[in-house]
Formats: sequence, structure tokens, C-alpha cells
Amino acid sequence: MQPTASRLHLGNYEGALKNWVRLQNEYEMFCFVADWHALTTMIEKTENIRENSLRVAADFLAAGIDPEKSTVFLQSAVKEHAELYVLFSMVTPLGWLERVPTFKENREKLSGEAEASHGLLGYPVLQAVDILIYKPYGVPVGKDQVPHLEITREIARRFNYLFGDVFPEIQNVLSDTPLLMGTDGRKMSKTYGNTIDLFETDEETTKKIKTAYTDPLKIHKNDPGHPEGCSVFALHAVYNKPNAAVVEKECRAGERGCVSCKQECTSALLETLAPLRKRRQEIESDPRSVENALKKGAERAREVASQTLVEVRKAMKLS
Amino acid sequence: MQPTASRLHLGNYEGALKNWVRLQNEYEMFCFVADWHALTTMIEKTENIRENSLRVAADFLAAGIDPEKSTVFLQSAVKEHAELYVLFSMVTPLGWLERVPTFKENREKLSGEAEASHGLLGYPVLQAVDILIYKPYGVPVGKDQVPHLEITREIARRFNYLFGDVFPEIQNVLSDTPLLMGTDGRKMSKTYGNTIDLFETDEETTKKIKTAYTDPLKIHKNDPGHPEGCSVFALHAVYNKPNAAVVEKECRAGERGCVSCKQECTSALLETLAPLRKRRQEIESDPRSVENALKKGAERAREVASQTLVEVRKAMKLS
Repeated sequence: MQPTASRLHLGNYEGALKNWVRLQNEYEMFCFVADWHALTTMIEKTENIRENSLRVAADFLAAGIDPEKSTVFLQSAVKEHAELYVLFSMVTPLGWLERVPTFKENREKLSGEAEASHGLLGYPVLQAVDILIYKPYGVPVGKDQVPHLEITREIARRFNYLFGDVFPEIQNVLSDTPLLMGTDGRKMSKTYGNTIDLFETDEETTKKIKTAYTDPLKIHKNDPGHPEGCSVFALHAVYNKPNAAVVEKECRAGERGCVSCKQECTSALLETLAPLRKRRQEIESDPRSVENALKKGAERAREVASQTLVEVRKAMKLS
Repeated sequence: MQPTASRLHLGNYEGALKNWVRLQNEYEMFCFVADWHALTTMIEKTENIRENSLRVAADFLAAGIDPEKSTVFLQSAVKEHAELYVLFSMVTPLGWLERVPTFKENREKLSGEAEASHGLLGYPVLQAVDILIYKPYGVPVGKDQVPHLEITREIARRFNYLFGDVFPEIQNVLSDTPLLMGTDGRKMSKTYGNTIDLFETDEETTKKIKTAYTDPLKIHKNDPGHPEGCSVFALHAVYNKPNAAVVEKECRAGERGCVSCKQECTSALLETLAPLRKRRQEIESDPRSVENALKKGAERAREVASQTLVEVRKAMKLS
């Protein structure tokens, strides 16, 4: 995850983090904050990268990533990523990178002093490093991210073709990540300003749900509603699952007013988030816990990464 | 110096190495073998890079680079170069790299499986790293190489502009490097097959001079000659300097035959090269001496490079 300035919202949580928390019981997980990647688009405002990185790491832990089970670290703390970047940089044909659609988009967006850099073009190279250096079984992705992994596979294949089998064919570890609806009825997204943030206060969440978008045809308490387009029902479906069928039935029958429906939704959501928000506060009162987890994580990551580099150098006949 | 397969010839020695040997008494020198750079054009035949690197390092020492005075190392042994490559990669606009003439030439030359890589485009980035990581006063260059340093200066300036003064404005340490003539009268160059190699046997050298190109108008011993186009006189001018004026006068006057002139030239050259060739043999019989020098060199290089990276990370607010 990149250390952006924006705070995690429920869409991010449902789409990624919650899955990781589940997966750490089945797999050895490597979860890192991509602070070097942030430089591809933020070279002129690096002053927040460090702070944002620590915040994202704290978010990981608060969301339930357990540093006893998973390896949590900052990319820049594992210098082996840089060495493999040099080597993959030599292995990756320019043409592959120039054809990546997100590169073309970003190149056009950036201009003036922030013009596209050699590192922006090399984004997929560094991403391939970040993944392959741990020789993983797979990467947890949503369906829309599957194409992003293709170039990582191509770099692995090209390396193996040139130097022998070092890297595995990585798998897409897909998971159900239903699109979460934002409080205005559109997809939840920072861009729309319709998010419920994972670590905002309970008061902020309550206020947002109070004014959230519901069925505009349901004006009076006893009007029959249409849950399918209602942002509050979308939250019920995820955070009040056991009662969602009843909520739906009552809404359609005109037996449920929006005010009490929102209150019920808020209670269910706050109950789900309570342990995460509590953990977030504990972490904030003890910043050392994040630093310690990152230190331990970097050590473990280095152990695995340096072993991969021994194999890489040997395969390339550089040692 | 890149670890190419070709052996050093007198042109390389006069043009570069001999200067470095002299400079090590005036400056603290960092002399390295650019084994990562070799990957930009030799990704399909990496099997010789290691061996060539050790040979080039042995050549350095035999030529007179003193590991007690100078820091001699392999680029790949100092991982700090890789970290700074990641960071400079983010700082260097693509446009600068795409406009480098040697990139355009190489991109056209490479094709098929060896097609131009992200690393080939990033060659000047890695070169800037190799230089700036030691924050040097300057770089010893021939006049024709001066433009190559310009992009290093531009990267340093851009870094300093974005993050504050970390890197110095490096100087061209120019030196007289008269073009050495090859045995066929053209510029001495591997491409023309007209070289006298620094570490070939005395017999090989003798044989090459015996058949070297001389003034074609001077057929008989007593014909007046024209030293200005004669490859043997070119060697006299460098390796038999005290007698060069006499040689020239006698040649023009028709008082000197080519056979004895070549013998005199050979003697003078072999005498100059004797200590280098002797040292080369000693080194070959004790490969540990090269390994030890490289190990010591890498340690010293890492000391300086890691200090620079502390400053770089601090300036970029990444630590």
C-alpha cells in the first residue's frame, strides 16, 4: 500500500485489508508500505512520506494485521529491493513499460517540475521486485487489479528464460470484494468525498450516516422503500448481515422509517469497528509499538530477500 | 571501467590508466569496475562478467593503481549504489534520458532478445550514482568524454534544487591524452585490430612492431622518411622520448633504416612496460591479492557511500 495522505475508508478495508487479516491465518504474509513508490508521483512533496508511511503501518496493525503472524515493513528499509531493481531494470525491455496504460496516463498528467521520471516508467519494475523478491505463492488482488500483475509475471518469465528458474509463476489470490457504496449512493471513493473512514471518530460516522443518501421515493415513514439503491441498506448488507433480510423486507413493506433504520445501521457498524478503533487508539498512545513491529518486519523481510538475491546473483553468474 | 572481454591496449593505458596512477598521489581516488553497467548491453551473456571484472581489477593493480592509496572495488559490491539508483531514478526526467545520443544509437543497435532495457535508458542515472555517491571534486576524463558528465551535473543540480545542497558541482579533471596511433597508422582501437596490448607477451609486442605500418615511400634504408605518419615513430614519441628528436632527424635524413628503428622502439617500449608486466605476472600467481584489494576497497567505498546516503535520505525527508 502506498503512503498517501488520504485516510483509509471502509471501501479500502473491505476491498483489501480485511482480506489480508483473514489470509494471514492461511499464508505467511508480507505486507509493506511502498514508500519508494510514492516518489514516482510525489517527488516535490516528499516531506509527508515518512509520516504517512508510519500512519499506514499503524492502520495495518489496527485493522488486525498481527506482527506476530505477518511481516509488516517499509519498502525502503529493505535495501535488497534496490539491488533487485537495478537487476530487473536491465532485464525489462523498454517497450513493455512504455505500453503500460497507467504510465501513459500519468505521463500526461505530470508536467512542469513534476515531469515523468525514469522511476515512473520503472514503476512496474519496482513492483515486480516487491513481489518476486519474496518468491510468493501469490498476491491478494481484486479482479480489477489482475492486469497489473501480468507484467510482474512477464518479468519473472524473462528472468527465468535468461538465467534459469528462480522465480515462481505467481497466482492471483482473488477474493470477493463487493463494491462498497458511498454515502451518496455512488461507489465509495475519496474522489467523491462520500467515504466513511475506518479510523474517524464514532461521532463523525454517526453524522455521515444520518445524512446519507436513501431512496428518494420514500418520503414518509410508511412509504415502501427500494433498498437496492440505498447507501444505508448497503451498509446493513455488510455490517448488519444477520438482520439484513428483515431490514429489506420491512423497508419494502413500508414498515420501517429511515431514521430508525439509520440508527440501527450505525449501531451495527460501530460495533464492528469498535475493536479496530480501540486498537488504533492504543497504538497512537504507544508509537513505539509500530516502530518495533516495523523493525522486526524489516529484519524478517531482509532474511528472505537476501536469500533470493543470493540465488539471483548465482543464476546471473554475478557471484 | 566496464568489464568487457577485450584486453587493455596502450591506447587505454595512455588515455586513462596512466593518468589515474599519477592522480592517486594528488587525490583520494575511487576506481571501480562497472559490472552492473555491463548488464545494459550484455544481459544475454553474463557468464563472463565476473571473470572480466576480476581481470580488469588485476589490470588496475598491475598498471600501478596502489590499493594502499586508492579505493579499488566492484560496483556490485557496494549496494548503496543500488539505493541511490532507485532515488535518482525518481529524480531524473525521462526526457533527459531519451535525448542522450548514445542511448538512441544503442537502442537501434540492440534488437530481438537483447532489446533495449529500462536499465539501458537509465545508464546515465547509474553513472551519476557511481560518481556522485562519493561526492568527488571531479572525474578524470578525456576531452571527448566531457559531454558524458553533463547529465551527471544536471542530476546533481536537480537533486540539490529539490532537496537542498547535498552534491557538489563536479569538475572535469582533464589531462593530455594524445591519441595513440595503432600499428596500421590509424587510431589505436580494438575495432581496427591494430592494438598493442598492455599485458600481452613481449614476443607478441615484438612481432607486432616488426610488421607495423611505416612510411610507404621509404623503401630502402637510405631513403628519407616521413615520421609524421609512421606508427613506429608514434611509439618512439611516447616511449623513447629522450631520443625521439634524434630518431626523427635521422629518419628524415635517410640515416636510419626501419628495421633497426623498430628494434630500438621495441626495446624502449618493453623497458617501459617491464615493471607493469612483471607485476601482472605476480598478481596472476597470487589471485588472492586482487580479492583482498577489492574487499578492502569495497569496505572503504561503503563507508563513504553510506554516509552520503544518510545525507540523501535526510534531505529527502525519508528518514
